[in-house]
Amino acid sequence: MNYMDNLRVVLVATRNPLNMGAVARAMSNFGATRLRVVRPYEKAFRGAVSAVGAADVLREAEECASVEEAIADCALVVGTTAIGNREIKHPLRGLDKAGAVIRKRLAREPVALLFGSEKKGLSNDDMSYCHWLLHIPAREGHQSMNLGQAAAVCFWELARGNKNIEEGVKRRAANMETVERITASMLQCLSKSGYVAARSEDLAEEKLRRMLRRFTLDEADAEVFLGMVRKMEKELNARK
Amino acid sequence: MNYMDNLRVVLVATRNPLNMGAVARAMSNFGATRLRVVRPYEKAFRGAVSAVGAADVLREAEECASVEEAIADCALVVGTTAIGNREIKHPLRGLDKAGAVIRKRLAREPVALLFGSEKKGLSNDDMSYCHWLLHIPAREGHQSMNLGQAAAVCFWELARGNKNIEEGVKRRAANMETVERITASMLQCLSKSGYVAARSEDLAEEKLRRMLRRFTLDEADAEVFLGMVRKMEKELNARK
Repeated sequence: MNYMDNLRVVLVATRNPLNMGAVARAMSNFGATRLRVVRPYEKAFRGAVSAVGAADVLREAEECASVEEAIADCALVVGTTAIGNREIKHPLRGLDKAGAVIRKRLAREPVALLFGSEKKGLSNDDMSYCHWLLHIPAREGHQSMNLGQAAAVCFWELARGNKNIEEGVKRRAANMETVERITASMLQCLSKSGYVAARSEDLAEEKLRRMLRRFTLDEADAEVFLGMVRKMEKELNARK
Repeated sequence: MNYMDNLRVVLVATRNPLNMGAVARAMSNFGATRLRVVRPYEKAFRGAVSAVGAADVLREAEECASVEEAIADCALVVGTTAIGNREIKHPLRGLDKAGAVIRKRLAREPVALLFGSEKKGLSNDDMSYCHWLLHIPAREGHQSMNLGQAAAVCFWELARGNKNIEEGVKRRAANMETVERITASMLQCLSKSGYVAARSEDLAEEKLRRMLRRFTLDEADAEVFLGMVRKMEKELNARK
């Protein structure tokens, strides 16, 4: 993660130090480090906050006297808004599109993302420093998000292009020889246990074969499963 | 927003009612309504929490005695993990890909998304009920996210495609109640046939549970398979 270094997160008139901590933690999660705080209600925010893993970000946080100061080194300034009842005079982008635009800009220059106070959001004066506004599309009836959660959602969206972490180990599919052995052994079990009557065995075999192939067995599972079925088959045979 | 109705958010052993409130609020923001709570540390979670806009979700929250109960009506069960130091035995998907898969499934059937406790996440036993695990790719040095924030990021990612719901008749996946019955009956078979020794039964159960969930059983197959396994179980029991 590196382009997130270019992100300047600006919290304007935040009231609750816990929310500052939450924003800092989410920044840390997604590789952003530069927090700027404008007119916080709680001056001693550094001490008041102990969000897990947020210590570094908070220690390095810069306190700015104004929005103007906080965004001075940025090439793009984006404000966030829940819209609500206010008349929006700025261009407005949903997070989806906004994210794509901001990611491109972050790749080459500093971008500020502003979050307003929990109660009132950004003031018109604060917004006047913004190129445009970002909005997280939420349910009609409940647009207003918690500050820490809104920030986390934004950072995730910005960081998502950062590298393609996809840790899933691909599983190799079972080969058909093994699957066929399972089929055969399973059929024996079903026959021995009376599930399948002797005269309908052919049909049952076909059905079973199709079904086992729908299970999308992987290689390792198929071996284990074969072992299980074999063991049951042996037991059912021994007892007859 | 409608497919989010199919999402079942399952909080397992959550410690802090504030976090439950935060999860409920984010659910409300993104149009999810069905919250299930398993073994919460704070029994009086409904009263203890007053997250903005979360009242409806919390009032309707269902308290479940077990993960098994909480996911019984779901066709897909996805656990969330920060990975950390633990050894992951499940298939693992980053949120990006996971989101795409879950969105498709939500369009046609109930999907459970599990979040573990703030301290320890989901236990191996909890995870054994999951088809696979979801991971929010975060910075190497600070993977662990706040619960409310992680949930918000997941819900955003799931809700983002809400307008373009892909339709199509597909096979309905088996619900977890049936799969769990298969698990239980199969375990009996394995035990009776000596595949599983008595002292290792718990471990075998977890392994078996994970494996059966990788089989991607559909509804009809699951019923047939259950019938087969039951019959074998009965036979193995009768003979001992």
